[in-house]
Amino acid sequence: MSKEDVRRRLMEIGAELVHLQGFNHTGIQEILRTAGVPKGSFYFYFDNKEDFGLQLVDHYGGQFRAAVAEVDAGGGPIEELRRIFQVFIDYFQRHGYTRGCPVGNLAQEMGDLSPPFRKRLRETIREMAEPIRYRIARAQETGRIRKDIDPGETALFIVSAWHGALLRMKVEKSPEPYRLFEKFVFDHLLSK
Amino acid sequence: MSKEDVRRRLMEIGAELVHLQGFNHTGIQEILRTAGVPKGSFYFYFDNKEDFGLQLVDHYGGQFRAAVAEVDAGGGPIEELRRIFQVFIDYFQRHGYTRGCPVGNLAQEMGDLSPPFRKRLRETIREMAEPIRYRIARAQETGRIRKDIDPGETALFIVSAWHGALLRMKVEKSPEPYRLFEKFVFDHLLSK
Repeated sequence: MSKEDVRRRLMEIGAELVHLQGFNHTGIQEILRTAGVPKGSFYFYFDNKEDFGLQLVDHYGGQFRAAVAEVDAGGGPIEELRRIFQVFIDYFQRHGYTRGCPVGNLAQEMGDLSPPFRKRLRETIREMAEPIRYRIARAQETGRIRKDIDPGETALFIVSAWHGALLRMKVEKSPEPYRLFEKFVFDHLLSK
Repeated sequence: MSKEDVRRRLMEIGAELVHLQGFNHTGIQEILRTAGVPKGSFYFYFDNKEDFGLQLVDHYGGQFRAAVAEVDAGGGPIEELRRIFQVFIDYFQRHGYTRGCPVGNLAQEMGDLSPPFRKRLRETIREMAEPIRYRIARAQETGRIRKDIDPGETALFIVSAWHGALLRMKVEKSPEPYRLFEKFVFDHLLSK
């Protein structure tokens, strides 16, 4: 495998393990062992564990963007928005409502511990709000939803409500927190 | 100190350390050392670390109930609700917007890892929604807020939105996520 292939494999294995176990709970040796990459070669690819973690945040951000980009674009911005969340809910259903949002998990775990993590996570969460902001603004232009709310603020509130719903989903192990999120965001908050 | 005093001291020190560092990241030896309690006596007070953690969840639930009970009861249910959240925001401001909700943190960290934790956290989060549900129901009775939302569902959605706002506050290190929470919950979601 090329250097780039190995690096990508370490990111993919690490993304999975950190999503499941948390960052502090996942050791470099475990990632290397699971990836079948020789012990000791980690520092050939990453400066240190924090550098690896920061690149993981970008990796998760890229996964989010890729998932959003795959969603069918038909039927108007609010229908698109519903489908975006549905993609993720289908994912959580397949995994028994475990895991949560990897970016939200890292914000919780690393936000207080590491300034570089904090900065990267703050930017990534703001980027996650962007496709929501964009669709809210479009829906306002076409008169589909209420116009007395700021699209950027609304998108950030929705991302937070989403993170909170995923957090509660972890202890409920059911789609109920998501159902409430969907109901309150689409039927009460956005609707005219 | 009596057995009960030592137990209470271990809970208080443990609550602080776990709030700051997470459960898996906090060792029993560290709690004992910080509390000045002889090494090895932990199992005199708790069955194991999980038993200690489950009692911590109850401890955090008790702190939440105590904080809510101290809030001034005047001026109507919605004003009370605003003051409840203000108490916690004042707390986070004093601590530089670090820490987050200890119950939300544990839900994130332990929800997938331990069924007994999951059950206890689920119950505790539902209990945290109760003083919110109660005030929403009272405000609906007096015609202060919209009546087309279920008080119990609304309270659970608000708790999740709150947890998500605290999570983002950890990476923003500012009250902005809370300001958006307050604006969307009180001015847009609840208002008629």
